[in-house]
Amino acid sequence: MGKAFDIVLIVSILLSVVAIMLDSVEAIRLQFGHWLWLIEWGFTLLFTLEYGLRLICVRKPWLYARSFYGLVDLLSIIPTYLTLILPGAKYMLVIRILRVLRLFRILKLAEYVGEANVLLKALSNSRHKILVFLYTVLTLVVVFGSTLYVVEGAASGFTSIPKSVYWAIVTLTTVGYGDIAPVTPLGQFIAAAIMIMGYGIIAVPTGIYSAELVRAYTGQEHNEACATCGRNGHDFDAVYCKHCGHALDEQTSGSA
Amino acid sequence: MGKAFDIVLIVSILLSVVAIMLDSVEAIRLQFGHWLWLIEWGFTLLFTLEYGLRLICVRKPWLYARSFYGLVDLLSIIPTYLTLILPGAKYMLVIRILRVLRLFRILKLAEYVGEANVLLKALSNSRHKILVFLYTVLTLVVVFGSTLYVVEGAASGFTSIPKSVYWAIVTLTTVGYGDIAPVTPLGQFIAAAIMIMGYGIIAVPTGIYSAELVRAYTGQEHNEACATCGRNGHDFDAVYCKHCGHALDEQTSGSA
Amino acid sequence: MGKAFDIVLIVSILLSVVAIMLDSVEAIRLQFGHWLWLIEWGFTLLFTLEYGLRLICVRKPWLYARSFYGLVDLLSIIPTYLTLILPGAKYMLVIRILRVLRLFRILKLAEYVGEANVLLKALSNSRHKILVFLYTVLTLVVVFGSTLYVVEGAASGFTSIPKSVYWAIVTLTTVGYGDIAPVTPLGQFIAAAIMIMGYGIIAVPTGIYSAELVRAYTGQEHNEACATCGRNGHDFDAVYCKHCGHALDEQTSGSA
Amino acid sequence: MGKAFDIVLIVSILLSVVAIMLDSVEAIRLQFGHWLWLIEWGFTLLFTLEYGLRLICVRKPWLYARSFYGLVDLLSIIPTYLTLILPGAKYMLVIRILRVLRLFRILKLAEYVGEANVLLKALSNSRHKILVFLYTVLTLVVVFGSTLYVVEGAASGFTSIPKSVYWAIVTLTTVGYGDIAPVTPLGQFIAAAIMIMGYGIIAVPTGIYSAELVRAYTGQEHNEACATCGRNGHDFDAVYCKHCGHALDEQTSGSA
Repeated sequence: MGKAFDIVLIVSILLSVVAIMLDSVEAIRLQFGHWLWLIEWGFTLLFTLEYGLRLICVRKPWLYARSFYGLVDLLSIIPTYLTLILPGAKYMLVIRILRVLRLFRILKLAEYVGEANVLLKALSNSRHKILVFLYTVLTLVVVFGSTLYVVEGAASGFTSIPKSVYWAIVTLTTVGYGDIAPVTPLGQFIAAAIMIMGYGIIAVPTGIYSAELVRAYTGQEHNEACATCGRNGHDFDAVYCKHCGHALDEQTSGSA
Repeated sequence: MGKAFDIVLIVSILLSVVAIMLDSVEAIRLQFGHWLWLIEWGFTLLFTLEYGLRLICVRKPWLYARSFYGLVDLLSIIPTYLTLILPGAKYMLVIRILRVLRLFRILKLAEYVGEANVLLKALSNSRHKILVFLYTVLTLVVVFGSTLYVVEGAASGFTSIPKSVYWAIVTLTTVGYGDIAPVTPLGQFIAAAIMIMGYGIIAVPTGIYSAELVRAYTGQEHNEACATCGRNGHDFDAVYCKHCGHALDEQTSGSA
Repeated sequence: MGKAFDIVLIVSILLSVVAIMLDSVEAIRLQFGHWLWLIEWGFTLLFTLEYGLRLICVRKPWLYARSFYGLVDLLSIIPTYLTLILPGAKYMLVIRILRVLRLFRILKLAEYVGEANVLLKALSNSRHKILVFLYTVLTLVVVFGSTLYVVEGAASGFTSIPKSVYWAIVTLTTVGYGDIAPVTPLGQFIAAAIMIMGYGIIAVPTGIYSAELVRAYTGQEHNEACATCGRNGHDFDAVYCKHCGHALDEQTSGSA
Repeated sequence: MGKAFDIVLIVSILLSVVAIMLDSVEAIRLQFGHWLWLIEWGFTLLFTLEYGLRLICVRKPWLYARSFYGLVDLLSIIPTYLTLILPGAKYMLVIRILRVLRLFRILKLAEYVGEANVLLKALSNSRHKILVFLYTVLTLVVVFGSTLYVVEGAASGFTSIPKSVYWAIVTLTTVGYGDIAPVTPLGQFIAAAIMIMGYGIIAVPTGIYSAELVRAYTGQEHNEACATCGRNGHDFDAVYCKHCGHALDEQTSGSA
């Protein structure tokens, strides 16, 4: 019953997101605008009903309303109603696409939650290191962007430092649009240095995250020692100590 | 004998794929079109013969015909015959290029299968995590694409949400064609955020897969089951079974 | 007290860097140039005061003045004073943006230092391998760049070997501006080879750094030396010192 | 003495490579062509002398002459002499840039060799897996390239299958020149799928190589068991068994 409801909700959310996307395409809106308008109102009424039921059913409605998912739910329906009062607010309608975030709540109920938790825990464990890395990257793009601003000048598109920093980000992350590109030999030489740096530097967050996951997988997080022989390094699923063969104590095997 | 047949088949498939490719080049078709037509018919008759022999030789022809490789075999020869009936179906000829997939079956017989299995097993083990990652990426591109659609507008090429989402994918994956690129300062600021996100986020699938392979490599060394309870998955340095607590037998600890 | 001072300094540095960036934008300088001039002088006087106090407070002023951070501190204030004497030195003002490097010193005092040290130690441990990798990359771009210079010629933008090497770097690092791109079939074939090479070669530094961090993470857990011979680097599950063969003391095996 | 000779040779090779590069720049050749011609002949005579001495000094000159480095040495000097006979062979001069490969031999003598060996051994161990990966990538680009050729057609630049496959490689490897890019909604949808695939698929070679290096680092390659207790998993630098404390046998500790 609850599962069927979830599936209906997932399909509704996906369909309404697709409808919003199609509605933004000029040619489709001109031809099928009326149908999309009907679909949108159908889903909005459905989601309004769901929102109302949630408010009634949960024990602390105010807590729900102020929670992240409560706000996403509200933002999913408000813009459609606002078009009745403010018909010109075309771009505000895009807010409705945040509905896509609602899927995360439903997926939370599913089997994927354990998988996502390992990923998030490893990310959380390495957040300090990732911040250090991010700060280094931002310093590099500021310094190199400014250098290119001086070396290349406005003629090649490096019209200001913020724009040059934007170019440095485009280059360091290996995106490389090509809308701005150095043309002087010196500029190209420095740009080549940034590229090789960006090419190699990606190893840092990847290494951090890989090492963190390897640690999580090999169960080094399970840091309780065997009560009999005092040694540790046991797997998450270990019931008996692999060194001395005695049972690991029950709290440990229960909580692991 | 079987090996010689495999090599002939591999060379035939590769040659016919190259012929299809060359046939699509205007200048070459005009000059050597006749020869390519002869080669194509030669290989088609050869592959038809092979398909017929397979149908006769295998025990359950119907099962083979409906299998993945059976369909690929059929799709490799059908389009050429269809040109006799429907000479205008130029693009349908491209289906023949799926012949390249036939190589996978032949390679399955070779020594590479063990290697591929480790890769596929690690991929299969981490499929849940990769799906979580993929869903997060898709949510990010929908939200950021829609934001850029509002911020930049049609003037910079962000004419609709689907197109803006396409741009967000091009940017997040660090492909960066540059056919669509933000021009307003705010748009470039958000784009820079997506780039850094995409640059760092690649660490997630890489970390997942690396950790899974490290686990597979470590586990491969000690693939004998416990003689007492029959379960395996023991560490390299385990002396006692972690499941039942009995000593792992001496051959195992000696050979590991 | 010291912490409050740090926060004030961090905010000052960030604000002054933003002011320098905005000052480089034509439209903003024309309208708010006077205010930015005032802000700049305010921060310059503040940083001058700080530099003076540091010179007075530290035991060896001359050592500080010649240190990396001492030079950065000096470069942060000198250019503004120089504009009084040399008003035309527009580009020299950009040197002030090196102020952003000053943040590293302040962050050194913070809790992030331990995290950064692990990252730097792993980088330092793998520096020889990274140099070997870097030298291989540089050889590849020189050889492939020269090849494309011969194959494509000046018509496609490959006007000289240095420019072709620049193109090879842009391609191998998967940046791909598209300002120079091969147009002949042979050139595109070789370019495709470089791309696949560059796509795969990124695995090398990432693998080096990941393996180094995995080692660092594992080693971190057991950082006590053998009581008998004083050497360390023991495995997580070691009972006896691998160097001298004496039992590692019990506190160690208990706490590890 | 030998070290001084190596340094002179490294500097000579680097200088001559730089001279070849500069010689290809139109503006520089016109102005300094005469000097570059003198430098080139100087280095060519020096390298000829060195080549001659090597032929005389080594025990088996013919073996050296046919070895990889022997051929590189020959190719470094031949083209300059050929210009005396065939003055028009402008592009053949580029062969001289292969001199850059000579540096590898000299570096072989240096301390970096051990580092490079670990990297090469891990690469060699994972070569089968990398071939499987490469074959999968090539199949993907053939299938997707052909699909885009049908979907987009010649109007968007997808004029033939080889060109479309080239585009698919540019996209899958996240290079993204933008010289050819899909314009139809369906083409962009398929392109987005290739991009996400290419973004994720990079995890495979990186994971393979990381896992291989982790294995090499943690010494699982050292697969000899302790003669006393029969257990293994010892480090490369282990002298005593970490499990039972007895000395590992001398052959093992000697060869490790």
